Amino acid sequence: MRVVRIFHEEDVRYGLADESSVTLISDEPFAAWEPEGIVALPHAQLLAPTVPTKIVCVGLNYKAHAREMGYELPAEPVIFLKPPTSVVGHGAEIRIPDGHDVVDYEAELALVIGRRAHKVTPEQARTHVLGCTCANDVTSRVLQQRDGQWTRAKGFDTFCPLGPWVETDVDPRDTTLESYVNGELRQSTSTSDMIFDPYELVSFVSGVMTLLPGDVVLTGTPAGIGPLHRGDVVEIRIGGIGSLINRVV
Amino acid sequence: MRVVRIFHEEDVRYGLADESSVTLISDEPFAAWEPEGIVALPHAQLLAPTVPTKIVCVGLNYKAHAREMGYELPAEPVIFLKPPTSVVGHGAEIRIPDGHDVVDYEAELALVIGRRAHKVTPEQARTHVLGCTCANDVTSRVLQQRDGQWTRAKGFDTFCPLGPWVETDVDPRDTTLESYVNGELRQSTSTSDMIFDPYELVSFVSGVMTLLPGDVVLTGTPAGIGPLHRGDVVEIRIGGIGSLINRVV
Repeated sequence: MRVVRIFHEEDVRYGLADESSVTLISDEPFAAWEPEGIVALPHAQLLAPTVPTKIVCVGLNYKAHAREMGYELPAEPVIFLKPPTSVVGHGAEIRIPDGHDVVDYEAELALVIGRRAHKVTPEQARTHVLGCTCANDVTSRVLQQRDGQWTRAKGFDTFCPLGPWVETDVDPRDTTLESYVNGELRQSTSTSDMIFDPYELVSFVSGVMTLLPGDVVLTGTPAGIGPLHRGDVVEIRIGGIGSLINRVV
Repeated sequence: MRVVRIFHEEDVRYGLADESSVTLISDEPFAAWEPEGIVALPHAQLLAPTVPTKIVCVGLNYKAHAREMGYELPAEPVIFLKPPTSVVGHGAEIRIPDGHDVVDYEAELALVIGRRAHKVTPEQARTHVLGCTCANDVTSRVLQQRDGQWTRAKGFDTFCPLGPWVETDVDPRDTTLESYVNGELRQSTSTSDMIFDPYELVSFVSGVMTLLPGDVVLTGTPAGIGPLHRGDVVEIRIGGIGSLINRVV
């Protein structure tokens, strides 16, 4: 099932998409909802599929990437936050901040929480996840190194594209994750190469901060990160989900 | 004017407090509101006075504290985020995480945003701030050092007491900030010792991420930080605002 959030008749609505159409639903996908009409998918203006109260991200989480960088595998995830104002949807523009010429893409698989999670086990975590979407953890590498804390480097408005929808029927532990810049493959991995699998991450985070419906957990980026310049088009593609495409301005 | 948020007749309401009573208001304090009845202040159950979409904090921001630590004064603020789930109000409990015996208090002056702020100047920033409240940036020093990124160390549920209310008529650039543990003075400064003054901070943050009504900007802690153990009572006291008191469990 594909859960979308769209702009429809001057209103923001959630819906369920198939190949050709969107069935509007009466409430958030986390609540009890009823179907309420149909919109043709080509006419639907897709928004980021969730409005998180927080976006929790993890540092180094792919084995091949850790080896490439010469790092030891971490014993625990290192987490950080991106602000909700950094979220944009499929098709939106990524804005390079004033005074900068370049930002980096980081393809990531994102989990969207469906049910409040507080100190859940990895086994329980699965039932607290609504589904998965594509994410781009856009980062200013210059500011990341200058500040030490990553909040500014990763926190600008438009630095967290999410979308195109939340797919509820994909296994986040074993699918393909790729990124393309102007159509050229830059990152390619299986999510099975993660150091901490998605449900271990949700469990770990839920032991620190309670996760709420709509919250997002990003699961780290694989090897192959690199720069984006104004005019570039970046695509994050995940098997079983689809493609998140954004232009850089 | 003191803006409070209270639990009243099984509902959460905003109001305006004087010495003895709370005038309930019909909407959020950021919106157009009408008065709607009176509650005696001693009977009002105070909640955190705002529900932020983000809490933006700044590292080292007091000159005396920087000198004490042997640091150079920073050229720019270093910012980080605490999650909204870390917020609790006056009188609520601070919970030390499982497996830990101690957390640190950090007294801070908090600004509450009243009006959307995107790339505002320090001069403009003043009109985007609703008012000020007391904050405690509770921190696990052990995890702060272990992780490098400060999100986990500062992000546990209950690690951001805010309150008791938002005072709209205090000058955040020149007031007293103190903390007490079990009644004993631990931190004492004037906010005029800040490296980046409150409106410079709002301006800086608004150049990275758009600030929304209800969002909170914490302005750093002065010298004298130290530990809290289970059973301790910690008080953050700011001149012209009042006292935020929480017990540690």
